[in-house]
Amino acid sequence: MPPVRRAQIVRATIRCLAQDGYARLTMKKVAREAGVSQGILHYYFRDKRDILAAALETVAADLNRRVAVAQARGSREPRARLAAVVRACLDVAVQQREVWVVFIEFWGEMPHDKRLRAINAAVYARARAALGAVVQEGIRARIFRQVRPADAAAVILALVDGVSLQLTFEPDAMPAARAARLVDAVVARYLAPGGGST
Amino acid sequence: MPPVRRAQIVRATIRCLAQDGYARLTMKKVAREAGVSQGILHYYFRDKRDILAAALETVAADLNRRVAVAQARGSREPRARLAAVVRACLDVAVQQREVWVVFIEFWGEMPHDKRLRAINAAVYARARAALGAVVQEGIRARIFRQVRPADAAAVILALVDGVSLQLTFEPDAMPAARAARLVDAVVARYLAPGGGST
Repeated sequence: MPPVRRAQIVRATIRCLAQDGYARLTMKKVAREAGVSQGILHYYFRDKRDILAAALETVAADLNRRVAVAQARGSREPRARLAAVVRACLDVAVQQREVWVVFIEFWGEMPHDKRLRAINAAVYARARAALGAVVQEGIRARIFRQVRPADAAAVILALVDGVSLQLTFEPDAMPAARAARLVDAVVARYLAPGGGST
Repeated sequence: MPPVRRAQIVRATIRCLAQDGYARLTMKKVAREAGVSQGILHYYFRDKRDILAAALETVAADLNRRVAVAQARGSREPRARLAAVVRACLDVAVQQREVWVVFIEFWGEMPHDKRLRAINAAVYARARAALGAVVQEGIRARIFRQVRPADAAAVILALVDGVSLQLTFEPDAMPAARAARLVDAVVARYLAPGGGST
């Protein structure tokens, strides 16, 4: 069986989620959307929760790829690298709405499945580690003040998640570029040297 | 029919959502959990989406009440009022996990229902207006620098949402009090006078 088929099923699942939501997702609908038999679908995935997990891993990998491309294109300077991450993530919230649909549906299922919680924890741990490393670099270069890199990473992640939710819910509230500048300003002031230990 | 019965059904729905999630919610389960007949349930609610909307409005009202109580107890000083909001919201994320369960399940249904989007927009508009008013007061008192109050409100809301998600997903990552101090520090630096126009 071609390995491409699994990816094709996951993409079909993401389209189904964006269209109808997880509550109305069925294995039958996914098979139809992917153009495969239910037998083939069940060869790859046990149930709809199993496909939801694969959908989350796929959109998280897509997001990481976009962030990596944005970082590679720009300056290596820590502030510029953080700004590139923020901008790439907020662009996704506006341009690829299905990414946040998948995240939100996944979070809805998480309280009921330990495996999903572990997947999400790994996605967040990886994001925090990547952000923390850039912050650490900025601290070493004395561009940023002495903060705990893990705290700064949690803050940046929270801002990106929170603003992405607002952009997802009200796409006309603010253009992504303006939202990104706003987040950059908050992060810059949080990390700027001086101004006490707060 | 006693008006208390509607509230009782909504509370039962919130318990069902926390236990099983929206995908597995049925009118039958809600009726059983609430101890009412399906006839009575249908007298109050058309379908499960209709109950989900009521659940969101109930947890949002609970959250507003907790925020109001926290603000009334503390100082009227704008920084203290913002800190009270942040602390009250993060405490809810840790102590009343069902609140975030309802929000996340509601967000999952939102793309598929205009009415749900309108309810969420109203909840967010109210939160932004309340936060913006406190920021405006701080600007007038020259405690905060000149920012657009709507921008500051969006930032504070994003931080609270984003950190609440992290506390919901990984309750052991950080105590609520520490998370609140972290958010306070970010907001304080963002709003502190001086340091250029960023």
